[in-house]
Amino acid sequence: MSAQPERVQDDSLGGRRGGRRARRKIRQHIREEMLPALKRNIPLMEPMTPDQIERIDNASMDILENVGIVFRDEIALSDWKKAGAEVKGDRVHLDRGLLKELIATLPSDFTYYARNPENNLPLGGPHSIFVPMTGAPYLRDLEDKRRNPTLDDLAMFHKLAHMSPALHSSAHHIVEPMDHVVAHRHLRITYSSMKYSDKTFMGMTTSPKNAEDVIDMCRILFGDEYIQSHPVVTGNCNCNSPLIWDETMLGAMRPFCKANQPVLCSPFVLGGANTPASTAAAVAQLNAEALSALAYTQVINKGCPAIYGHYLSTVSMASGAPMAGTPEISLMNFMIGQMARYYDIPWRTSNTLGGAKTFDAQAGYESATTLMAVMMSGANYIWHSAGWNEAGMHCSVAKFVVDAEQCAMAYRMTEGIKWDDFDECIAAVGDVGPGGHFLGHPHTLANFQDAFFMPKLFDNNSIEQWVADGSKDITERALNYARQLLDEYEEPKLDESMDEALLDYIARREREIPAVDALNNEH
Amino acid sequence: MSAQPERVQDDSLGGRRGGRRARRKIRQHIREEMLPALKRNIPLMEPMTPDQIERIDNASMDILENVGIVFRDEIALSDWKKAGAEVKGDRVHLDRGLLKELIATLPSDFTYYARNPENNLPLGGPHSIFVPMTGAPYLRDLEDKRRNPTLDDLAMFHKLAHMSPALHSSAHHIVEPMDHVVAHRHLRITYSSMKYSDKTFMGMTTSPKNAEDVIDMCRILFGDEYIQSHPVVTGNCNCNSPLIWDETMLGAMRPFCKANQPVLCSPFVLGGANTPASTAAAVAQLNAEALSALAYTQVINKGCPAIYGHYLSTVSMASGAPMAGTPEISLMNFMIGQMARYYDIPWRTSNTLGGAKTFDAQAGYESATTLMAVMMSGANYIWHSAGWNEAGMHCSVAKFVVDAEQCAMAYRMTEGIKWDDFDECIAAVGDVGPGGHFLGHPHTLANFQDAFFMPKLFDNNSIEQWVADGSKDITERALNYARQLLDEYEEPKLDESMDEALLDYIARREREIPAVDALNNEH
Repeated sequence: MSAQPERVQDDSLGGRRGGRRARRKIRQHIREEMLPALKRNIPLMEPMTPDQIERIDNASMDILENVGIVFRDEIALSDWKKAGAEVKGDRVHLDRGLLKELIATLPSDFTYYARNPENNLPLGGPHSIFVPMTGAPYLRDLEDKRRNPTLDDLAMFHKLAHMSPALHSSAHHIVEPMDHVVAHRHLRITYSSMKYSDKTFMGMTTSPKNAEDVIDMCRILFGDEYIQSHPVVTGNCNCNSPLIWDETMLGAMRPFCKANQPVLCSPFVLGGANTPASTAAAVAQLNAEALSALAYTQVINKGCPAIYGHYLSTVSMASGAPMAGTPEISLMNFMIGQMARYYDIPWRTSNTLGGAKTFDAQAGYESATTLMAVMMSGANYIWHSAGWNEAGMHCSVAKFVVDAEQCAMAYRMTEGIKWDDFDECIAAVGDVGPGGHFLGHPHTLANFQDAFFMPKLFDNNSIEQWVADGSKDITERALNYARQLLDEYEEPKLDESMDEALLDYIARREREIPAVDALNNEH
Repeated sequence: MSAQPERVQDDSLGGRRGGRRARRKIRQHIREEMLPALKRNIPLMEPMTPDQIERIDNASMDILENVGIVFRDEIALSDWKKAGAEVKGDRVHLDRGLLKELIATLPSDFTYYARNPENNLPLGGPHSIFVPMTGAPYLRDLEDKRRNPTLDDLAMFHKLAHMSPALHSSAHHIVEPMDHVVAHRHLRITYSSMKYSDKTFMGMTTSPKNAEDVIDMCRILFGDEYIQSHPVVTGNCNCNSPLIWDETMLGAMRPFCKANQPVLCSPFVLGGANTPASTAAAVAQLNAEALSALAYTQVINKGCPAIYGHYLSTVSMASGAPMAGTPEISLMNFMIGQMARYYDIPWRTSNTLGGAKTFDAQAGYESATTLMAVMMSGANYIWHSAGWNEAGMHCSVAKFVVDAEQCAMAYRMTEGIKWDDFDECIAAVGDVGPGGHFLGHPHTLANFQDAFFMPKLFDNNSIEQWVADGSKDITERALNYARQLLDEYEEPKLDESMDEALLDYIARREREIPAVDALNNEH
């Protein structure tokens, strides 16, 4: 069975042609349309010289050869021995020749396939995609109340992701559905991602068996043969930095790699705590960690796609707390981009992270600082792009929709400068002349909607108008906007038989899996 | 008389050696110390090719030659005739040969001198400085209450600027002191800038006579001969875009140029309203406007320093309101940087602008987006770096101190990557090994205070700790911090005879100037 998703937007138009309602639908259709994968058209921020890139590379290779890296997993150790690595206990010493030979077979780019082919996405090189945050044990809901999330809350976020033009994925457990037993949660999360959006999505890697369930559900949605040659789902595997890959992550990695589905190989950097107190050395360490797992993906299945990952924070030496939006995180993003391009591997970063407890100005500064650094760095898989606050402890509905709009604004910046109407515009300067204005000029009238981005969620009115509108801060405006999006949401219906097949699978697995498990969040 | 300011920090230490109080003073001294002018050590964001730069240059030259630009001022028109320009009515047609010849004598860099020589600053090329916002008719005060400002409020902001390490200037009318008659206000503003801080400052250009008063007061503070060869004060002159320089601005420009003091030649861009609806064409227009005034500074006084300026906003075509933090503003900053470097002239931009009515997340996103774009653009004179919100209608105390810290963070990013301890840090990875931590490692212990920026005004604690601390959002924390700064503020005393001379001058001028005038804000 191949992916033949219905074209829900066209259907909804087709059924109601003519009249005001159809025009409203057309407007809605425009608003909801997903932006294509971003193709960058501005330069990259590259603060390292070629010599400095090689210095990082060399230090990483020294670490992998001399210190080695722990693969806390019998199958991986056995695989590494067969692949020719030197294995001492659970520590793998990777020779730079072997490592470079292995990572050379990683695709430098690939296409993500969605159940709606209009939402297929190229990834790698100049192409980037925005993916919402995941893993929050709390949410701030439509009333800005902080509480534990439910499956319905997760569905709400999947709907909001579906409605946000700059979000290219519904991700997976944006929030942890606490009303559902941990052992069965991955099934419901995956179903929710698949059902409420027809964009790309992510798959749970909370255990090897859970990863297998995700792949099985993808087989139902896309077809057995189809997924073997089409990336449709992304799994994340975190390194226990420094220098440990554990059994859960490695076990979850294998079903993805074997099915030719990309994993993110993500060292988890708490700069200064689990890395040296140095940006350059932290990058060298995480580079060693990421490359070792990327190499292992090729041991599992030569040629399968995978993504150079990381999660970055720096640690406050005053309190031990992880920090977001710091200058060193920006610098590390720039540097990691250079390293990933040096190895010609698509790479992932984290976006719009906030450590604030509410959606206050701190959250805004932190998020925009990171977003801008990320856009300059050339990251391909831009995860955690909407909703993240309180160091990932909660996903905020208000922040989710604002972040999504911020991504659309950053997207616009990264598209670069428009030159096609330049001569016409310069002629307009002569038409208007000193002291005139351009508001009535034909070029302005023809271009006013697109020439300058008009953010819906920023209020730029006078204070008098703002007071007359109820003195609403951005949190209140954003929550109103989220309610409006949810009101207008139309489900991109799954084919009924496919839906039944997925639900049958879930029912069977819920009978098979004991309802006891451990919670395991990813970042 | 040359500038011989007292060294207040040394004095305060010298007088109180030994004991806890001295140690407290030393800590304070460290916190208050101004950062040197930023010397950038990361690359620039340059989205235009050399051909595209020439395309902008060529379009600007065409505008100046063919459309011409209005100089609404008899003296300027007469000056232009003498300089060889073609003048038709009040419109000056500037030949590109003449224009390029004139701007060629602008210094590409210079030093700003402060009354405390420790606060002298190189400007131009890789060197940048942060200057607080100015011109707000309202403030949000220490209680976050929005009201009209007084001279005491202005003094408070000058003190906060003095206490902020990344702010390199006390600017001038950060807020408009509404309790003082407009006609005399420039005298009190200038005195406040000079008295409460020993950093560089700005001078009022609200009329030709006011500008002369500023220069006279600088002569008192620094000495007649001294200022003729030492830039000590900056005036701003806005263009009435499109393509008009008015009598007030031109008349204010002349006393600065004649005294060899730099002016900012600042087209005021409301993109889409007073420029075409196009980033590229808006830049071409403002480039023509800025260059025409920069050329005129050289007609007034060949070789005097001046700064390529602009004020950038884009206009919401929905409401007509100016917007901040939009992608086109970022792109225009990158482009203007390329143009200024093409002409080899130091350039000014605006920083951390917000259109929000309160210090909410909108203000944070807008400010950080602009700050990051500005840091990538290589701007030299980074104005409006603290306090700006509500499109400049108010200066917020809370935002002022947060912005100042954000500038310090951006400063750190722009200093680039530290490599000197790289080998030592890589050795630490081997020392610690898989699964260890770096918190107790000697390198971490020796470097923890400086390796990663720890923002004072971001709360990165757990929510439990944050609640225990009173659930304070960033506005409340920032206002507490501002109060603490003001408690600890020590005035960098003016020499008594100099202080008297300034006050005598003000008293005389207040007798001479009728107490009637028009308010004229600058941006």
